Amino acid sequence: MQIINNAGVCAPLGFAASAVSAYIKGNQKGNLDLTLLFSEVPFKLAAVFTKNSIKAAPLKHAIELLKTNKEYSAILVNSGNANASTGQIGLDSVFEMVKSYEDALETGENSVLMSSTGTIGVQMPVNKVILNAEELVDELDDGNSKLFANAIMTTDTTSKEFGVLVETNNGAYVVSGAVKGAGMIAPHMATMLCFITTDAMVNENNLQKVLENAIAPSFNSITVDNDMSTNDSVFLLANGMSGIIPDMEQFQEAVSLVAFELAKMIVKDGEGATKFVTINVNGAKDDEEAKKCAFVIANSPLVKTMFNGEDPNWGRLIASVGASGIECIEEKIDMSFDDLPYVKNGIIIDEKLEEKAAIIMKNDEITITIELNIGEGSKTVYTCDFSKDYITINADYRT
Amino acid sequence: MQIINNAGVCAPLGFAASAVSAYIKGNQKGNLDLTLLFSEVPFKLAAVFTKNSIKAAPLKHAIELLKTNKEYSAILVNSGNANASTGQIGLDSVFEMVKSYEDALETGENSVLMSSTGTIGVQMPVNKVILNAEELVDELDDGNSKLFANAIMTTDTTSKEFGVLVETNNGAYVVSGAVKGAGMIAPHMATMLCFITTDAMVNENNLQKVLENAIAPSFNSITVDNDMSTNDSVFLLANGMSGIIPDMEQFQEAVSLVAFELAKMIVKDGEGATKFVTINVNGAKDDEEAKKCAFVIANSPLVKTMFNGEDPNWGRLIASVGASGIECIEEKIDMSFDDLPYVKNGIIIDEKLEEKAAIIMKNDEITITIELNIGEGSKTVYTCDFSKDYITINADYRT
Repeated sequence: MQIINNAGVCAPLGFAASAVSAYIKGNQKGNLDLTLLFSEVPFKLAAVFTKNSIKAAPLKHAIELLKTNKEYSAILVNSGNANASTGQIGLDSVFEMVKSYEDALETGENSVLMSSTGTIGVQMPVNKVILNAEELVDELDDGNSKLFANAIMTTDTTSKEFGVLVETNNGAYVVSGAVKGAGMIAPHMATMLCFITTDAMVNENNLQKVLENAIAPSFNSITVDNDMSTNDSVFLLANGMSGIIPDMEQFQEAVSLVAFELAKMIVKDGEGATKFVTINVNGAKDDEEAKKCAFVIANSPLVKTMFNGEDPNWGRLIASVGASGIECIEEKIDMSFDDLPYVKNGIIIDEKLEEKAAIIMKNDEITITIELNIGEGSKTVYTCDFSKDYITINADYRT
Repeated sequence: MQIINNAGVCAPLGFAASAVSAYIKGNQKGNLDLTLLFSEVPFKLAAVFTKNSIKAAPLKHAIELLKTNKEYSAILVNSGNANASTGQIGLDSVFEMVKSYEDALETGENSVLMSSTGTIGVQMPVNKVILNAEELVDELDDGNSKLFANAIMTTDTTSKEFGVLVETNNGAYVVSGAVKGAGMIAPHMATMLCFITTDAMVNENNLQKVLENAIAPSFNSITVDNDMSTNDSVFLLANGMSGIIPDMEQFQEAVSLVAFELAKMIVKDGEGATKFVTINVNGAKDDEEAKKCAFVIANSPLVKTMFNGEDPNWGRLIASVGASGIECIEEKIDMSFDDLPYVKNGIIIDEKLEEKAAIIMKNDEITITIELNIGEGSKTVYTCDFSKDYITINADYRT
């Protein structure tokens, strides 16, 4: 398996994309905000959607359609408007927009899905989307990965792509993708859209299993601010054009790696983030308790501001362990900052270690390991710090 | 029942206080950080402590003692050091400090409790506390409520006191108190110390019941940043010096009011807060679900930054309802901003209402009411906005 430089959604055989500025983003004119991802031959589709019980209109549309139909030709994506909390009008608009692209592509009924991100509660400017159908179809090109990755961005500061080439005895196939997301990233993939494409031949049942396995340690193990959006979606598209039926273990490894690298990019681009923080919780009663504890720590504003302030204040971490409500015994808790043992049996090993810990806190990437020493449960989550820019971005943001 | 101006912990008969700067707050020299609250005659004591499973040393000491002993003469309080995660040394230090004050007061064994707030994981400067025993005892005075309220502060920007006079057929009694807390305030009273005094005559069992009843709609219904500290405590001290055995209903009302007003002051002084926000959730399946939903909304960084930005972006509120995981039907959700009906059946009533909602968002106090229309459950919680100052305070704070 080898990493492909500058790979995006068009890296596998047969995929093409195009993007325009449809002025959906309101006053941010000129920014790309509407993009089409197309495959020459229909692709099998696996998808995982937000657990938020308020779901955006395009998700309602896709969830219903996916019950019976697993093959598609294209996904239309817009940024600037989430088409969420828009009622029946919003849902009708998805059908109307999708229809116009099915007509322009001449791919027939139920061949196009839609995916949206942006402001909630505002009706879609349907005509702006429809008016661009011909142009987007005309401009489809397999060199447009970057345009796609740019067009799906909202508060992201950079586009995010990652892909790998997998060599087999019968030739090579590609797994590659793009993601958007910077805020509202939480255990359940908040305000996050991810598109992973492959030219491997995989049936829809295996594809769904592989995607779900890939999400647990990646998109469901990251958190920026513990919010969960109405629009989060991860799609895995397989068009089979490499002609290769992959070994499933190897394919899983490839999809998991792509998902993991894309998830890390989201945390690194967390709104206002200046630090990438890994939280390991080991020795919990079970994995479920380790997960609960790791997320409480990773989401604590006091912990997150502590990383921003580069203060090795382990007291906030141990208070957060206690606040998580999991089973723990204060006198058994050990803690390390990177490779530095810092806390043993619930208290600091030596107050002089604070100087060494302070140096570690200045790094861009920091790993905190907490050993509860009561069981075998463990979990790793990824988070970022909370900076003044987070407030600026979120107090002022309204596409 | 009437509100007493400038009432604090010494307003009821027989209570006196004193405070000094013991230089526990390190570089913040000259700030009051050690204070003694004393009653001429022993008081009955009720207390509620943090649910954080990591508890500070003074809490461990008090919890153990309260199992058998319900009468005390004084509480010693320090700010600047939490004496939490300090192991056996920390616990031993509480016994040593308390003993020196019992000796100075000549009140005998087990007559003094301690309460601490400040940085976690640093050993108490025991000698600084002990050296001030004689001075604090000498300076006890019933005019020192304000000194007490100031000495317990950490990141608070203002001291917080509230008291009422309750007239009965047999004369009057007073319920009055002081609180500290500005950050880490969460459902379970994080980093919050509250001392409510009364000269009513109430036995310890009734006192504990009244305190617990008072906490649910006050300290357990506020949130600043969803963190929960190792030191949170609420104390209710009754010395009986008014000679009045109160009607329990009236007494409950008085204690509840004092607790509620003190809790509101904490939210208003939330770290960096510029807005006081009331979140009503009505029509949930049951009260438990209403509570869960209200707290998810009140703790969402996206919701809190939206108030800071004065943006009437109801989409973030409805997304937060969905993210809470409670039972809800999008098409049944109604929402008001103050008295303005804004959302009906899950969608905005009229996009023109946004202008009116934007005017409401400029107020210092805003009430959001969400009607789920599926049951009878309801809950009100109080929160504040998230501002850049929150980050500044918490990235830089280390007493």
